[in-house]
Amino acid sequence: MAHDENERRNEKWKKVLMHVVGERVMRFPSLGWETMWKVGSEDPRRVIHAFKVGLSLTLVSLLYLLEPVYDGIGQSAIWAVMTVVVVLEFTAGATLCKGLNRGLGTLLAGALAFLISYVGKTSGRVFQAVFIGASIFLIGAVATYVRFIPYIKKNYDYGVVIFLLTFNLITVSSYRVESVLKMAHDRIYAIAIGCAVCLLMSILIFPNWSGEDLHNSTVYKLEGLAKSIEACVNEYFYGEIEATGDIKSPEDPIYKGYKAVLDSKSTDEILALHASWEPRHSRYCHRFPCHQYVKVGAIIRQFGYTVVALHGCLRTEIQTPRSVRALFKDPCIRLAAEVSKVLIELSNSIRNRRHCSPEILSDHLHEALQDLNTAIKSQPRLFLGPKHRHNKIATAQVGQERHGKALGFSISSVKTDSSALLDWKTKQSKETERKSLRTQLSKIAITSLEFSEALPFAAFASLLVETVAKLDLVIDEIEELGRLACFKEFRPGDEVVVTCEEPRVDVLQNHLTSHGVA
Amino acid sequence: MAHDENERRNEKWKKVLMHVVGERVMRFPSLGWETMWKVGSEDPRRVIHAFKVGLSLTLVSLLYLLEPVYDGIGQSAIWAVMTVVVVLEFTAGATLCKGLNRGLGTLLAGALAFLISYVGKTSGRVFQAVFIGASIFLIGAVATYVRFIPYIKKNYDYGVVIFLLTFNLITVSSYRVESVLKMAHDRIYAIAIGCAVCLLMSILIFPNWSGEDLHNSTVYKLEGLAKSIEACVNEYFYGEIEATGDIKSPEDPIYKGYKAVLDSKSTDEILALHASWEPRHSRYCHRFPCHQYVKVGAIIRQFGYTVVALHGCLRTEIQTPRSVRALFKDPCIRLAAEVSKVLIELSNSIRNRRHCSPEILSDHLHEALQDLNTAIKSQPRLFLGPKHRHNKIATAQVGQERHGKALGFSISSVKTDSSALLDWKTKQSKETERKSLRTQLSKIAITSLEFSEALPFAAFASLLVETVAKLDLVIDEIEELGRLACFKEFRPGDEVVVTCEEPRVDVLQNHLTSHGVA
Repeated sequence: MAHDENERRNEKWKKVLMHVVGERVMRFPSLGWETMWKVGSEDPRRVIHAFKVGLSLTLVSLLYLLEPVYDGIGQSAIWAVMTVVVVLEFTAGATLCKGLNRGLGTLLAGALAFLISYVGKTSGRVFQAVFIGASIFLIGAVATYVRFIPYIKKNYDYGVVIFLLTFNLITVSSYRVESVLKMAHDRIYAIAIGCAVCLLMSILIFPNWSGEDLHNSTVYKLEGLAKSIEACVNEYFYGEIEATGDIKSPEDPIYKGYKAVLDSKSTDEILALHASWEPRHSRYCHRFPCHQYVKVGAIIRQFGYTVVALHGCLRTEIQTPRSVRALFKDPCIRLAAEVSKVLIELSNSIRNRRHCSPEILSDHLHEALQDLNTAIKSQPRLFLGPKHRHNKIATAQVGQERHGKALGFSISSVKTDSSALLDWKTKQSKETERKSLRTQLSKIAITSLEFSEALPFAAFASLLVETVAKLDLVIDEIEELGRLACFKEFRPGDEVVVTCEEPRVDVLQNHLTSHGVA
Repeated sequence: MAHDENERRNEKWKKVLMHVVGERVMRFPSLGWETMWKVGSEDPRRVIHAFKVGLSLTLVSLLYLLEPVYDGIGQSAIWAVMTVVVVLEFTAGATLCKGLNRGLGTLLAGALAFLISYVGKTSGRVFQAVFIGASIFLIGAVATYVRFIPYIKKNYDYGVVIFLLTFNLITVSSYRVESVLKMAHDRIYAIAIGCAVCLLMSILIFPNWSGEDLHNSTVYKLEGLAKSIEACVNEYFYGEIEATGDIKSPEDPIYKGYKAVLDSKSTDEILALHASWEPRHSRYCHRFPCHQYVKVGAIIRQFGYTVVALHGCLRTEIQTPRSVRALFKDPCIRLAAEVSKVLIELSNSIRNRRHCSPEILSDHLHEALQDLNTAIKSQPRLFLGPKHRHNKIATAQVGQERHGKALGFSISSVKTDSSALLDWKTKQSKETERKSLRTQLSKIAITSLEFSEALPFAAFASLLVETVAKLDLVIDEIEELGRLACFKEFRPGDEVVVTCEEPRVDVLQNHLTSHGVA
């Protein structure tokens, strides 16, 4: 009986397992297909790039497959294939950077290896082996060490790796092969063909420019910030009041707006580095001002930190009650709208490669600041500490009420500080509940403070004013950019703009890591 | 005469040129030496790593140089050299990650290539060439496309590149070489030897662990933030008042403290990725919680943004006069010191791998908050708008004085808004001076606002209180980290700590970019 039951149970388990595995297997193709589709629809250039790589590989394979060509180049054709796999990158700038690094590294390594094999061959076989071993050790250690120097690391890291690789291959081979020169010659020839195919493919057929990507990402970042600020102020006045800590959902429109800005440093720098290798692609200007784009990126990031702090005001533990907020709603929303308008105008000016409007810091912005000022001045009592009539949200928890000490105002905080602390201390019975209690303590400590109503709003308003100040720096850098990149002059009709919602492309996702040697 | 003069001028130019070039050449070695020395002294592990690479290269070269070994392996020994150049990385985790990726990619590619060459050989020569060409195109396009999928890109990018490369090499060779299996076998053998040398070198001889680097960088980031907050509050109360915009000098101790935190996202993620490949290196815990370190890093970055906003208060256009600041000096400095103490305690707890003190959010912090509260409550008048007696700095520019409208307080702003605007508008004569004037307008617009004294300090105080709230989240994540990483329990004696000033190592600089294929 027991045996039967065991068997039945096993059977059942097997069925369940089959079912689960079957479902997984069935789901896998659709999931895979969805992912593939998403990757392609996010940026169709990826599909084109994939076809370009396939085409280039087939082209260099012909060197090997076609009889007459093979007779000319021979075994070395394999190096052309390697070069294509390794050098062909998503953007023209990256391909050029890698191709030239590879060329330079190979040539230098070839020259040095030839010198060393020449010196080595003057003596006996054993001395040659020792000499080659020693030089491999020395060059290997020095080249690796040099890669840590920041300047080399930034600009020529790939070149040094290729140098090290080629040097080792040729030096080691020279011990067994008679005609090193012939070998090096063939190899360089094949690599040159590979590089040529890559350059033609990346520059002539549907080229992607790092400079363009950098330009577009700057535009998108400015737009994102504009949306963030508006969304932030709207949520502050219309959204629900909650102190949920700092858990940012990726769907939050505020977070989405500034997310790309915060971590843009490395992307910007890589794009600028690659863009600096690209030939000019504008008729008007002789150089692409990639460093200025990096500077603009840095100042936008600074602006972004202020927006993060503004966002933080929404999630802070102490909240200004809605009734108080309502008093300043209109001027704040107006100010945010003006700041946002300036950011959109800046992003449009960059998008259309024209200087920004001379009236970009308009009287409207000034008036909005004035309005906020007037609104704050007209409510001086709020900045004296919480008052009973505003404390609607807090009153739910009010335990006792006491009267202001120094000034005679009626003050009702959530709990008085000493009683809250006492409450907490009596609760502190178990060591294991340490964490939740500690959190509670800090919450009580903060929310029981009596500047709780005045301060958070003051911080919010101050940060909003701060964005206006930072806006100045952003405008300065963008005007400098316009000067360096020879943007066209502003004409009065230009300011009528339609902000087109282009799909947001994450340029970092396109930057395939630069593996690749040989 | 003219000819003579020309010649003399040329001569002079040549001399100057020679001198300049000579000086450059003379300076170059000393500059190079300095750079090399700096790179080594910043982190001596770099020197060791360079020697390790040299040694490994020499070891695998022996495969080629020693007669008996060469007879066994032959030409394929070259692949072992390539593998070492490409796979040996600074940390054990990175080496393991690349080595395993390489192995996996090679094996898969070998299997697929063998299948394709087998199918191709069943038909005629021409069909075989077409079949090989088509499969190279298809596999090349698909593999490149797959690299754009975020999950693959993050974990297996290198493996896919190696797969593509090996597949192409074997498939193309199969057209000319008879014994593909022999070739593939030799090559895999050589690559295995190369990988083995790399793994031995990186795990057994002076290993550098990514996990350790991640751990240490977390410690340093917390310390940096602690220093930043203290320096920031000290400068706010003792430093000079200046509104120089946002130009951050790299020597600024406040900036230095939080700089590493802001751009730490990519470093953290790379280190965590590599650490996840490392074998456990602790006796106590079965897995290194690298994801929790990334989470801690994210929450520390959030904290950092608040510190940036705090720093922004020092550089803002509107400044609270020193006389006003002095009123709140002691409680603010005390609160900052308490926050900083908590951060130092957290960093020490991570450094020593122990849980943090249960009294980490001590009564001191609570008292400091209370003090600040009391101080603000005792000065209610400040939050009503600027008053004459505090306006010492501004009075230098005071043009006229007028009396408060609604409240009867004497108000003297820098200039009244309308007159300032009028002044500016008469100045607006030349279009070319647009920029400086615009800047001026925005400055006037902001500094002439009458909430100028109340608001900036309120923001400063509020942000300071906000750091306390954020501290909670940091402590939560670090306690979770302590739990996952099996930190040892806190013992009462542990809190007496000496914060030792270790040299700050920029771990990102050690992460050599992962080029490398073949």
